[in-house]
Parts: sequence; structure tokens; C-alpha cells
Amino acid sequence: MKKFTLFTPGPAEVPPRVLKVMSEPIIHHRSQDFREIFFEVRDKLKKLFKTKQDVIVFASSGTGAMEAAVVNFFSKGSKVLVINGGKFGERWSLICKAYGLDVREISVPWGEAVDPSDVAKHLDKNGKIEGVFIQGCETSTGVEHPVKEVAKVIREKRGDDTLFVVDGITAVGVFDIDMDGWDIDILLTGSQKALMLPPGLAMISASPRAIKCMEKSDLPKFYFNIKKEMKAQSEGETAWTPAISLIKGLRESLRMIIDEEKLENVFERHKKLASILRSMVEGMGLKIFAKRPAPGLTTIEIENAEEKRKKMRELGAWVAGGQDKLKGKIIRIAHMGYYTEGDMLYVGSVLKHVINS
Amino acid sequence: MKKFTLFTPGPAEVPPRVLKVMSEPIIHHRSQDFREIFFEVRDKLKKLFKTKQDVIVFASSGTGAMEAAVVNFFSKGSKVLVINGGKFGERWSLICKAYGLDVREISVPWGEAVDPSDVAKHLDKNGKIEGVFIQGCETSTGVEHPVKEVAKVIREKRGDDTLFVVDGITAVGVFDIDMDGWDIDILLTGSQKALMLPPGLAMISASPRAIKCMEKSDLPKFYFNIKKEMKAQSEGETAWTPAISLIKGLRESLRMIIDEEKLENVFERHKKLASILRSMVEGMGLKIFAKRPAPGLTTIEIENAEEKRKKMRELGAWVAGGQDKLKGKIIRIAHMGYYTEGDMLYVGSVLKHVINS
Repeated sequence: MKKFTLFTPGPAEVPPRVLKVMSEPIIHHRSQDFREIFFEVRDKLKKLFKTKQDVIVFASSGTGAMEAAVVNFFSKGSKVLVINGGKFGERWSLICKAYGLDVREISVPWGEAVDPSDVAKHLDKNGKIEGVFIQGCETSTGVEHPVKEVAKVIREKRGDDTLFVVDGITAVGVFDIDMDGWDIDILLTGSQKALMLPPGLAMISASPRAIKCMEKSDLPKFYFNIKKEMKAQSEGETAWTPAISLIKGLRESLRMIIDEEKLENVFERHKKLASILRSMVEGMGLKIFAKRPAPGLTTIEIENAEEKRKKMRELGAWVAGGQDKLKGKIIRIAHMGYYTEGDMLYVGSVLKHVINS
Repeated sequence: MKKFTLFTPGPAEVPPRVLKVMSEPIIHHRSQDFREIFFEVRDKLKKLFKTKQDVIVFASSGTGAMEAAVVNFFSKGSKVLVINGGKFGERWSLICKAYGLDVREISVPWGEAVDPSDVAKHLDKNGKIEGVFIQGCETSTGVEHPVKEVAKVIREKRGDDTLFVVDGITAVGVFDIDMDGWDIDILLTGSQKALMLPPGLAMISASPRAIKCMEKSDLPKFYFNIKKEMKAQSEGETAWTPAISLIKGLRESLRMIIDEEKLENVFERHKKLASILRSMVEGMGLKIFAKRPAPGLTTIEIENAEEKRKKMRELGAWVAGGQDKLKGKIIRIAHMGYYTEGDMLYVGSVLKHVINS
């Protein structure tokens, strides 16, 4: 008999009621029924992103929205700064380079968060930086970057001349990311983390400042054309056929987050889950890998991590390992989305059992 | 009480057993469980495409695979020929132009199929055409283009120097499209038609000739990078997080098509459904709009089409209308995928009732 719970930083567990609405008979996407669902989704996504701006939905995984964040707002040769502190910081650089941007990097040691004063120094030194790219949470290391503080530095140093682009894939809906309040220009996320859905949807929003830049952008785009989607989606449609079943699921999960539990309570729960698990972990004499741990996942230094991870999986607790140079050195236990205190006691006990056996 | 059946050319009806597997608890995509599913999907997709080549799966709608067909195989300024006989032919031109290709068109009157001898003339006249783009079925008009004959012309006139790119979104799995047998270079489809799934997945395959061109292509790409996906997917993974629940659904629908009903029987069923419906339509004194009607949908000339369509919907038969200049002039009844003779009697009767009332 097999029975397991995913504690992976994507996909995360999907609530049964969300699975259920996705298994209802398919509806047509050019219909009043779909428009009603989609308008509700749009309204709730604004609350999730804490923005008055439109939040655009793509049928793609999160990486698609990362590409959209590059190709819609910048041009060939645009000088940009990437905060690279792990696999996903690295992905920003790869995407920017694939499209011919002039990429500068702040290389942050894996496990650490960027120091906002380093961003300030770079902006002073490097002249006309058109965009700064960061992760809200660097999922490969479990680190939360100081997004609010970096936003402040960018605005002080560069005013309206630099766009601040935040990959919120394991941040939006996990902890506070205040798009309008902190003056973030481009914020994006994916469906399979805090949004408690299967992968296959990505969401992105752009500030008025970013929308102005959209007009000047000379990079080629078609599927991920935000301008086209903004027009279509404001009318309750999408430029290309939407992932209808996932959007139905999204409405259900947003109802759970925005209407029922309420966003601030979700954030509090994530903090509490992190705290419970981390107490257990430290009680075992293990060390948290991330220097500034994000509320959505706990990364733990552990010997023979892959072997331990396999043993945990045999006990039903499916956790993630380290990527690239962290492979075999850490495990990553995610607790963003559909997770309870009981889940933390479960995964913590399994870890303890495996460590001691 | 609401009860309806979709007869729309995407999304089409999804069988309950496919909906059911998609509502199972989510699994992780870097796992043996996922790899087993994905390898079975890959094997069956080759049978569906009638190719020995890999068939790559993207988390996107079909338009994403159309973009992939352009950005992976051509370069800025590549001279290409688009067969444009409707909305989807037009989309080929728009994508090619968005990426700076040098686009020539054969403009085919809406409702007609391209004449292969016109393709021959163009290739004689136009010098170095690097790619010819076509639809297997132009969904906006219901026309089947003579793909096999056009393939033959291209090979005769251009040998290995021109890639033949076929949008098979309402063709693959609907009627015979023999990728290897007919020497098609790039063939693609989407999930929400013959594959009986919700939208959100696209599939694409490339011939050895096309793969050679991939190496020379200078167009920027990241999310839709086929080379990267070929490597990852041959190992049972995907470069970016896959749409796991849809891929589980895809295995189920491919089992129905490839193992149970068998592909050739599916084709025969589609022909039979088309024939039953068209007899009824002609019996009502109505005219089929498409000059060379494809087996997957029936387009019907009808006065006040939008009003008739609305009345049909009130009786539970959800058919599509005309697009752009065909709006109000035709209705489109799709019968590709999960449809039976009984469904044709139903939708035909509803149409008759609405026409006579």
C-alpha cells in the first residue's frame, strides 16, 4: 500500500475540493460561465498580489511568466542586474541572456540573502541599469531576499528609471509581498505552490511604470505577449485558449485563501508552521541551511541527504533534495499552501526517525 | 437545471475516466511514478504522430507549440511561405512576423483548401523558401488541406532545403496525418481536441532534417526551447515543471485512443460521424461551408447564425460560431474526440428543431 504527502516546493499538496472542481465536465472558455469564473479569479488575484493592476494568467509553468517578465519590458542590450543566489537567480540570468540583455550579477553565496547595500553600491557604480531581477524566495536554498528593502534602494537610487522584477513563485501567497505598497514593478507566481493547484498556470502583474516600458520593448514575443493578454483578459477572455480546468481550480483555491482563511492568516500560518518544524529540527541537533529562512520551506543541512530523503519517502513524507552543488548536502521541506501543524509534526517525526535509525 | 454537451472545436468533451485521473492526488514530477507515466505517454504519442522521432510536451496551449515551431528552426530573415486560408493560417503569419521572418503567403479563400500546384508555382518563383507552414485542418473554416500532396510538392521542388511545418491541432488523432510516411518536418497538436483533455498541453515533433536546422536557428527562445526539452524529456523529465495532472489525463486518453479503440478506428469513427451529421444537414436543405470538409468538424452556412447558435445552446448543444468575417454566417459543429453516433443524432436534431422553429 502506498500513501504519501508531498512536502516539496512545487508541486505542493492540492486540497480535495480543488481537485474536485477540476474534475467537473469541461466548459467553453468563450462563455458567460467562464467569464464569471475568470472575473472572480482576476479580482482575487489582485488581492493576492496586493495591487490595483491587472494580474495576467498564462497557460504555462512559472518559468513562462519569468520569460514574459523579460521579453515584454526590456530590449536587446538592456543593461540589467540579477541578484543570483541560487538556481532561480541563475534562471533570471539565463533568460535575460537568451534574449540578448546585458546582464550584470550580484552573486550571493548559496544560503545567504542579498544585502540591500550591495544593490545600492552596484546601482551607484554601474550606470544605467534598466531592471533589477530578484526572487522573493530563492527556492533552491530556502532563503527569503529582503524584497522591500531592495525596492527602497532602487527607488532612492534610480527613481523611475529602473524596473524592479520579483519572481514570487514561492513567495506570493506564502508571506507578505506588497506589490503596490513596496513599489514592485513586475511580480509573478505559479500555480503549484501557495495556490494549492497542479502546475500549469502562471500569473504576472505589471506596474504603470512597467507598462510604459512595454511600449518601448523591442524583444520578439507572441505567446507571452502581455499587452495582448491585458486587453483580452480585461474582457474576461484570453488571447490563446486558457487552461480551463486549472482556472476553475484557481477560483476554488483563491476562495479558500482570500475569502475564507484570509491572506494575513495564511501568512501567519506559514510562519507558525516554519517555527514548529524548525524547533523540531534544531531539537535534533540539525542546522537550518538558509541564513534568512523563508516561511515557505525549511532547508536543512544533513549528511547523506539523498539517502535520508529516500528513507523519509518510504515513510510517506516526500521531501526535496538539494540542487546542483547542494545535492546530497541538504533536504528541503516545503510547507506553503495546504499544510497544517499536524503535517509539521508528521514530517518532523519522520525526519527524526530517519536521523536516529 | 443546466445540461449541455460541447460540440466546439476546442475544448471538446472530456471522458469521465480522464477527468477522474486528473482529480487524483498530485504526484511529484521528479519521481519514478511520474517517469513511468511520462514514458508511456511518449511512446503512445509517437504512435499518434506516426513518427519514430521524439514528441515533446509543453505546458501551454497549442499556440505555444506553434511559436516553438517557428523559434526553434528558423532565423531572423528566413524566407518562409504560409498557406493562409483562415484564422489559424493567419496566426502562422503573425508568429513568423513577430520573430522577424520574411513571410510570403498563399492567400486561400476562406472555405477552400490550398491547391498543391499553387504551392509548386510559389516554390518555383520564390527562390529560397526555408519553410512552408500549413494547417492540417483550418479550424476556422472546417477545411482539410491536402497535407500529403503539399508535402510531395515540397520534396520534389526543394528536397532537403525546405521544412514542412504542419499545425495538426484539429488534425492529429482526428484523421490520418502520417508524419514520417509523408515526410513532414514539424508536426504539432494541442490537448483539447482529439486528445479529449482540457486545454493546457501542447505536443510537437521534429524530423531529423528539422533537428539539423535547429542547430543554426538564431531566434531567441527559452521556455519553448525544443533542444533543451528533447534532452530532458528523453530522460523522463521536463526542463520546466510539467502540467502533471494534464499529463496523467493524457496517458488515460492515449490508452483509450492507441490501445483500446485503436487509431485507425478512431479515424473511421470521425469520418462516420461527419457523414451522419452532414447527411442530416443536407437533408435540412443547408449547405456545408467547407469545400473540402475535414472529418473533425462540420461548418454550416446558416442565416442569423449567432441567433441560431444561441437557441441550440439553450437546448444543450453548444456549437461554435464563425470567426471574423464569418461571424453570423456559419456555425461550426465539432465531432473530434469523445463523440458518438448518438451525439450526432442529438446535435443534428437540435439544429433541425432550431431551423424549423
